[in-house]
Amino acid sequence: MSQGSLIVISGASGVGKSTVIAKVLESCADVYFSVSCTTRPPRAGEVDGVNYHFINRVEFEERIQRGEFLEYAQYVGNYYGTSRKIVEEQLDRGIDVILDIEVQGAAQVKDNWPEARTIFIVPPSFEELAHRLRARKTDSEEKIAGRLQRAREEYREIPRYDYIVINDELEKAAEELRAVLIAERCRTIKRIALIEGV
Amino acid sequence: MSQGSLIVISGASGVGKSTVIAKVLESCADVYFSVSCTTRPPRAGEVDGVNYHFINRVEFEERIQRGEFLEYAQYVGNYYGTSRKIVEEQLDRGIDVILDIEVQGAAQVKDNWPEARTIFIVPPSFEELAHRLRARKTDSEEKIAGRLQRAREEYREIPRYDYIVINDELEKAAEELRAVLIAERCRTIKRIALIEGV
Repeated sequence: MSQGSLIVISGASGVGKSTVIAKVLESCADVYFSVSCTTRPPRAGEVDGVNYHFINRVEFEERIQRGEFLEYAQYVGNYYGTSRKIVEEQLDRGIDVILDIEVQGAAQVKDNWPEARTIFIVPPSFEELAHRLRARKTDSEEKIAGRLQRAREEYREIPRYDYIVINDELEKAAEELRAVLIAERCRTIKRIALIEGV
Repeated sequence: MSQGSLIVISGASGVGKSTVIAKVLESCADVYFSVSCTTRPPRAGEVDGVNYHFINRVEFEERIQRGEFLEYAQYVGNYYGTSRKIVEEQLDRGIDVILDIEVQGAAQVKDNWPEARTIFIVPPSFEELAHRLRARKTDSEEKIAGRLQRAREEYREIPRYDYIVINDELEKAAEELRAVLIAERCRTIKRIALIEGV
């Protein structure tokens, strides 16, 4: 058995990351979606351990000190981070791990874990992104403008990513993400130990 | 539109390369299978321009002199080569090109075209390869022993390849080859020019 792949996914709020990831988790065995830790309070309907691991600020900062995060970042006054231990356990069992994280966190992962593959999910256009954000009916126009502004800023980081997936049609975007996962499993560096006679 | 990907496939005689490739060509648009040139005489049923471009030795050597081959090699006294022009035309039209070539040719392509992706297709075991070669009923036991010996020698080159596909079940092997093609199309370096706002 070879080690799993670490797959990092970023993309603007509203681009449909969670839906694309959910589609891939449905159809691919041996893939684990990493649940982040956060100090942000749970929103209505959010479940501890499912949406996030909700922990307090003191504990988060202690864990930072102990080097327990593979990556962490502050965003709008709250911490968000990924537990190194859980990720490593899955990878060692040959399970691929998907992280859905911001561009800062993605850069940290790539620094600490160069073999991680990073994917940036983009909408077909900014106009379509604005349309999707409005359709969610959760944000004010002002908040939507802020999200679009942030999305434009994050686009500057795209050249650092290994892959771009365009979420125009969900099926196609999921197929592309799945293709990256499958191709990673075929890498010579991962498979060569399994091959008789090499 | 971005340039197509150059995909190089090698693997032992009898491993099922052609069947896996045919399966992928059926289900993937914009993929072109490159037909090699050879000085070997056509076998019964082989069609010029379909199985190979059959050319004579003098012409082959003239084309070598003119640098018209992306790669070429001699094998059992005959030349085999890939026309650079045809490959480049397809890639420039955004079409992915698959080459099915020997390990020497693959090394030449990788030297001349570092962005090419190379895939080595292996059987689940040497025992299974021997079984498949016998099932074809085209070779003597002596010839089969020679092919197996050659396969073992070629295995030394596997570490130079980007990917390993194990042809145990055809569907799974075809899915893996398809995944490499799709993942290549998503590479940031290929897609970034298509993205608005970068």
